[in-house]
Amino acid sequence: MSSTASRDKFLSIWPGIRDELVAYLEAQKMPKEATEWFKQNLDHNSPGGKLNRGISVVDTVQILKGSDLTDHEYKQAAILGWCIELLQAYFLVADDMMDQSITRRGQPCWYRVEGVGNIAINDAFMLEAAIYHLLKKYFRSEKYYVDLLELFLETTFQTEMGQLIDLITAPEDSVDLSKFSLDKHHLIVVYKTAFYSFYLPVALAMHMSGVTTESSYKKALDILLPMGEYFQVQDDYLDCYGTPEQIGKIGTDILDNKCSWLINAALAKADDGQRKVLDENYGVKSSESEARVKEVYKQLGLAQAFDEYEAESYKRINAVIETIPEQGGVGLKREVFRAFLEKVYKRQK
Amino acid sequence: MSSTASRDKFLSIWPGIRDELVAYLEAQKMPKEATEWFKQNLDHNSPGGKLNRGISVVDTVQILKGSDLTDHEYKQAAILGWCIELLQAYFLVADDMMDQSITRRGQPCWYRVEGVGNIAINDAFMLEAAIYHLLKKYFRSEKYYVDLLELFLETTFQTEMGQLIDLITAPEDSVDLSKFSLDKHHLIVVYKTAFYSFYLPVALAMHMSGVTTESSYKKALDILLPMGEYFQVQDDYLDCYGTPEQIGKIGTDILDNKCSWLINAALAKADDGQRKVLDENYGVKSSESEARVKEVYKQLGLAQAFDEYEAESYKRINAVIETIPEQGGVGLKREVFRAFLEKVYKRQK
Repeated sequence: MSSTASRDKFLSIWPGIRDELVAYLEAQKMPKEATEWFKQNLDHNSPGGKLNRGISVVDTVQILKGSDLTDHEYKQAAILGWCIELLQAYFLVADDMMDQSITRRGQPCWYRVEGVGNIAINDAFMLEAAIYHLLKKYFRSEKYYVDLLELFLETTFQTEMGQLIDLITAPEDSVDLSKFSLDKHHLIVVYKTAFYSFYLPVALAMHMSGVTTESSYKKALDILLPMGEYFQVQDDYLDCYGTPEQIGKIGTDILDNKCSWLINAALAKADDGQRKVLDENYGVKSSESEARVKEVYKQLGLAQAFDEYEAESYKRINAVIETIPEQGGVGLKREVFRAFLEKVYKRQK
Repeated sequence: MSSTASRDKFLSIWPGIRDELVAYLEAQKMPKEATEWFKQNLDHNSPGGKLNRGISVVDTVQILKGSDLTDHEYKQAAILGWCIELLQAYFLVADDMMDQSITRRGQPCWYRVEGVGNIAINDAFMLEAAIYHLLKKYFRSEKYYVDLLELFLETTFQTEMGQLIDLITAPEDSVDLSKFSLDKHHLIVVYKTAFYSFYLPVALAMHMSGVTTESSYKKALDILLPMGEYFQVQDDYLDCYGTPEQIGKIGTDILDNKCSWLINAALAKADDGQRKVLDENYGVKSSESEARVKEVYKQLGLAQAFDEYEAESYKRINAVIETIPEQGGVGLKREVFRAFLEKVYKRQK
């Protein structure tokens, strides 16, 4: 199936999921204003993104099965996929409030919608609660139900830890580059992004496919956390070097004091003079300061350093993938990770 | 044990729980600033209240057992109790942000602590995540582990629904009494308070005591939801008629446009002239307006209406308690509910 067709199919089950969630509130005799509000909350925040995380669950279940999914299998996998999208929605509603962002996915951030404001905090909570309602409804009788609960709960905690380090390391209004380091960057991206965006979809699919071998989950982690890190480093690179046409926005990491891979790579290489320029200009809201930072990046050859990082990551991740036996490990197939890596490698957007 | 001694004993296990949670972050190699931050978050927000909900778990386990708890049993019950206190902390950190409150339990609200601000949203999330970390650590091998997970998750969703109705029914800055009604009040207090404050502690204790009979949980619900509602109506009454010495604060429900039992009882009885006074003065930030609302309450005899409500609730709740066989039902004892009711009935603070 083309990626557009597979996205459309995945999207087509959303209205049913949303309606079931709203129906739960109706069954509790919640007033019309509340059920309508919840519906808006779900619709504004859950679909609308690239849906890569959600669709990956379906793709992975399919690869592990090795043949087409039945309608029932598709639905179950897609429900898990939508649970990840709800988890992401929960994080993004809150992140946008914490970052005081203006828009998200081409529309106003939820807390900036007329009449919402700080109620968005409770709305974020309800997006999270929706996950567990769906898991109970669709997976309660499965042997791996408790594994799904634990996996979502632990991944949530990990992501929140990553968010905490990010928030206290790189507050938008107080620049202190001495808090930055490539180690800190590694920790932030693994916890804030890699667990929920890379490991979670595959691990959910593995549970659904009946994989119970602990070492297979460990292997997936060994491949997917570095892949998630590589993905985020690309993201950081594209924020600075991608064109607005490629990335669909104008990058603002330098202006916003973001703990990006680029600034950390720069800090690791800068001499005293360059360090001074970075200290004085990073996170300063002016295009002159931004240009001075970019000039240091250029002096330090960061675009080339990224190319090297990329080639090296690709090699390293492939090497771990190849430790899986060619005919497949216990509930694992190289193809699961190859499919993921090919989507990510040398992406331009 | 005196209630002070039992509170002290319950409090004495907090530092150990907190340290274990912080140690988990340390084991993930989180930087010192992050582990310190999390420790402050836990300490600022979890102990410090009355701890009634947490202590009720211990008391209920003890009543159901009928003899003293072993040290291990005490610890397990107290962990569940602290999980409720963490759930409450999660709600309160967020509620204070949504209500723009200034102080809580005699100290600044967490989001108002120097340097915290909107990071408090993620901190609230982490308080919630701590619950599931503790449940996994202490209850994973128990048959009722999944019941504990579901109970916490569902109660969280219910409380968030209650919070949503409250937020959209009674926004502080936009008064519209036509949105109020005794039915709406009932729904708000049952969902926002009764499930997590009354049903949850007892249901957790029942699971820990090995109760598996569905009808016993149903019976507990039939007693504890009305009891929670009665408790909240008292709270609303005391906000207006309790002295500051009794309630430890100056009531501001009228000024803040709260969907209190009193205003709803008043709306149900008011004639057109009284209704006009309420419409024009409720939620208006002036002591003159507040006095005019109180004058209508007086004309309508609300203090007496409360006394009648109280007597009637007490009778009704006791009648349900008495449907439990005197020698105990399936995993139930009248004493569980009597102990709860005696703490609440005719309380003055």
